[in-house]
Amino acid sequence: MADRWTAAQVEEALARLPGWVHGDNTLERAFTFADHVAAMGFVVRVAMVAEVMNHHPDLRIVYNRVELKLSSHDAGGVTERDAELARKVSALVEPRTG
Amino acid sequence: MADRWTAAQVEEALARLPGWVHGDNTLERAFTFADHVAAMGFVVRVAMVAEVMNHHPDLRIVYNRVELKLSSHDAGGVTERDAELARKVSALVEPRTG
Amino acid sequence: MADRWTAAQVEEALARLPGWVHGDNTLERAFTFADHVAAMGFVVRVAMVAEVMNHHPDLRIVYNRVELKLSSHDAGGVTERDAELARKVSALVEPRTG
Amino acid sequence: MADRWTAAQVEEALARLPGWVHGDNTLERAFTFADHVAAMGFVVRVAMVAEVMNHHPDLRIVYNRVELKLSSHDAGGVTERDAELARKVSALVEPRTG
Repeated sequence: MADRWTAAQVEEALARLPGWVHGDNTLERAFTFADHVAAMGFVVRVAMVAEVMNHHPDLRIVYNRVELKLSSHDAGGVTERDAELARKVSALVEPRTG
Repeated sequence: MADRWTAAQVEEALARLPGWVHGDNTLERAFTFADHVAAMGFVVRVAMVAEVMNHHPDLRIVYNRVELKLSSHDAGGVTERDAELARKVSALVEPRTG
Repeated sequence: MADRWTAAQVEEALARLPGWVHGDNTLERAFTFADHVAAMGFVVRVAMVAEVMNHHPDLRIVYNRVELKLSSHDAGGVTERDAELARKVSALVEPRTG
Repeated sequence: MADRWTAAQVEEALARLPGWVHGDNTLERAFTFADHVAAMGFVVRVAMVAEVMNHHPDLRIVYNRVELKLSSHDAGGVTERDAELARKVSALVEPRTG
């Protein structure tokens, strides 16, 4: 089990995770796509990445918008694993903006 | 645009939609699966059915649990279209219990 | 039912469908992605677009490669519906190359 | 890298893999579903299981039919990893027939 990060540790990690914010014991980010089809393509890729890590986001889909909340429930807050998942999720979308 | 249903109309429809409840201007139901993989198989099928109807649920995924909230935003509440989507979503899971 | 196109009609349509080729009574194109996760994101989007059209490709997935063959089985060859699906599939990937 | 199995080893494994057959250096099985939506729910689950194993099937989707060919390309034929993936894929569908 990874150790729960202090608020300072979370803030330090967020400096290298553009777009992510510090929620209630979570890392959070919302993504908006052209339409529901594009949003679902993203959701499936997130699910595959999460399944390989065996670390799963709280994920909400509202048409073309996908909201993610990452937390390590066993540690009661944010850990290195959440930052790692956040990095991998960001990598899924960044190439499309290039 | 479909007409917003009265509370009485919603209750009448719910009598034929086992498992669904009347939320805050929504029809709501949560589904629990064996694991995240099974949950995602369901989510993709829901998304395809919703896309064909061009009527999309508010959908939340937490590991093996999928929560749906159906509402017709243009009508400001529940309409026939939500009941139709609820029926189609229910049909996606019912065969597995047979 | 749409009419089956002559070879000349298919060639004319292909002039406006870069990347697609005329196969054995099919329109064909293969797409290569960074990895299997990216390929699956594409496959799910293709499936949603196809389901809305109620016109489905023959689709093969080999790791990061997705091969599509489009044909109108009821017409015994290529029709306007295949060209329409080809256009929609191309639109799913084009933004990522921009 | 897992060792390539002899024909006798493959046959022995197939005795415990109902529905699977020995193809050309592959394990093969086709699944038929009610419709394309159900087929895609299965495909996404197969892709997640395969991604976790980092061992991916050759997968073909034709409307409601999904064909899988499993092979270990580095070993030039069928290995223990293909049998393991076959077992996991079978487990995805078996509960639905219960």
